[in-house]
Amino acid sequence: MEQIEPPVRAVGWSPAGTLRILDQRLLPGRELERDLGTIDEVADAIRTLAVRGAPAIGVAAAIALASALPEVTRHAVEAAAALLRATRPTAVNLGWAIDRMLAVARALPPAPSLDAALRAEAERIRAEDEAMCRRIGEHGQEWMRDGVRVLTHCNAGALATAGIGTALAPLYVAHARGRRVEVLADETRPLLQGARLTAWELQRAGIPVTVLTDGMAASLMAAGRVDLVLVGADRIAANGDVANKIGSYGLAVLARHHGIPFVVAAPWSTVDLATATGAAIEIEQRGADEVALVGDRRVVAAGVAIHNPAFDVTPHALVSAIVTDRGVLRAPFPFVANVSLVPPPI
Amino acid sequence: MEQIEPPVRAVGWSPAGTLRILDQRLLPGRELERDLGTIDEVADAIRTLAVRGAPAIGVAAAIALASALPEVTRHAVEAAAALLRATRPTAVNLGWAIDRMLAVARALPPAPSLDAALRAEAERIRAEDEAMCRRIGEHGQEWMRDGVRVLTHCNAGALATAGIGTALAPLYVAHARGRRVEVLADETRPLLQGARLTAWELQRAGIPVTVLTDGMAASLMAAGRVDLVLVGADRIAANGDVANKIGSYGLAVLARHHGIPFVVAAPWSTVDLATATGAAIEIEQRGADEVALVGDRRVVAAGVAIHNPAFDVTPHALVSAIVTDRGVLRAPFPFVANVSLVPPPI
Repeated sequence: MEQIEPPVRAVGWSPAGTLRILDQRLLPGRELERDLGTIDEVADAIRTLAVRGAPAIGVAAAIALASALPEVTRHAVEAAAALLRATRPTAVNLGWAIDRMLAVARALPPAPSLDAALRAEAERIRAEDEAMCRRIGEHGQEWMRDGVRVLTHCNAGALATAGIGTALAPLYVAHARGRRVEVLADETRPLLQGARLTAWELQRAGIPVTVLTDGMAASLMAAGRVDLVLVGADRIAANGDVANKIGSYGLAVLARHHGIPFVVAAPWSTVDLATATGAAIEIEQRGADEVALVGDRRVVAAGVAIHNPAFDVTPHALVSAIVTDRGVLRAPFPFVANVSLVPPPI
Repeated sequence: MEQIEPPVRAVGWSPAGTLRILDQRLLPGRELERDLGTIDEVADAIRTLAVRGAPAIGVAAAIALASALPEVTRHAVEAAAALLRATRPTAVNLGWAIDRMLAVARALPPAPSLDAALRAEAERIRAEDEAMCRRIGEHGQEWMRDGVRVLTHCNAGALATAGIGTALAPLYVAHARGRRVEVLADETRPLLQGARLTAWELQRAGIPVTVLTDGMAASLMAAGRVDLVLVGADRIAANGDVANKIGSYGLAVLARHHGIPFVVAAPWSTVDLATATGAAIEIEQRGADEVALVGDRRVVAAGVAIHNPAFDVTPHALVSAIVTDRGVLRAPFPFVANVSLVPPPI
């Protein structure tokens, strides 16, 4: 496979060997890299979405556990792991990365060899994430015919991973090979990750992108202007139900109504075989001010109730395919019939 | 019928006999009434949505033509009518109200009798609008069972009319009669009429309301938390296709998928029998900054394309019923079989 550089590095190591993130709260207006030296700073960055995207927060937590401990002991790893794990409940990758770091801490003697082992494991997690993005990009090529018009939601791009993204990875690979692709980006209220992040990184990569409000997708589908809906995932249950950014489920219903494929792209680590169905996935509820305040302005009168779940669940019956780094899982789900498939060679 | 006071007067006469509006651009933060003395001021207020809602802008234009002419001549009415008609293309009520005022101007001798006739006709249009709202509220009672949970989009309430609204009218009537009703209000990007206006006026009336972002409606439907979708309309074609605020069509598809009735409430004057189907309805395209700027902050990188239609069209096949002041039109449409029905007695 040829190398394909991501348009931006959202998460990685600083030259000093600590966690470096691009602060996504400030995009697209300002590009500010921040080096985070304490677990509290990292937890705060994850909680406030300075670093976000299921794969990226897993990588961030791993690097934090390798570089930001008050002392390098198994006990310190356990305490920091508990704190980081509690920051966001829905994304499975966070807990998965933390568990890998904990396994290293539990298996090894104290510093300095523990320190080196933690750093090595965090770098493996980061590098695997980057390679995983690249493979998702490859496996998604079957939908990337020349001229394809892809609707996406939220940001499942470079900014959500350590590489070229998940849902956007097939687009970056197709673009690098000279195929014309075009993206319709839902702005994705309340936090506008589509408007602020997806449009910014695609523009940076030279891929044509148009931003629309979330309520506009349906009429574009009816007008025949959408060939594919392609989104990421924060957790995938064993039966193929997909938790992703709030609004994804509605898109899946609309795609079905209009006969458009609804494809999910996510690393294999997003599949949570311990969760039987989407009904068992905990949905993070976020604060009312994300909806009530627009900039400094209060747009909802004080005292009015606000509903603000961060995710919804799309039942597997509405999912056409799940593109993973290990290969493509296809409807009909559940997975059990699929997981033994040998991934296609890259 | 008992009198039911609207929670707010969006449009009417000032004590000086000119047009008085509540400036909706400033809600919910500030309640500012503005008296508009020139046609240019009124055109600007309609264009910038200081006064908005298909029925309300019809009333505003009528009062303007009766009170804000540079001189009261047929020629001045014609010139002002042309200017006001061009402000917004989709709402049929605007043209309808203007045509009524023009008919008066064309039938009558010059001032002062023309002046009095124009004022009388504008007041008739305003009073009819108020009465029309009340009748829509009455005709919509069949869906207002105690405890009903109604999802609405944009603002089709008191703020959109000279009375108690169109889509919100059945809720105000039910509430006045002591029935418990509950509203889920889509915030309605880009201009947030649901968050800013619908929530504000319902709270003022004491009706429980919860604001959600537009992408959240689908998961609430799947969770069984929506009994009815009830929206207004800006233009209804002869076959029953409905143009309404962008996002309405998606709600209609979602409602159908979840087995929830999708009901439209609008004055009979919104029905445009000269327009055969929704495909012939002109859809207003608005400026990119409505999406790209949030307050003073640019949330979409400069140079990124933006899609911003103000309306979409819901095909009649997805509409369960249209509640008008003349009675309820029911699926299956087209209308032709329906229009001769005698409206139920009030």
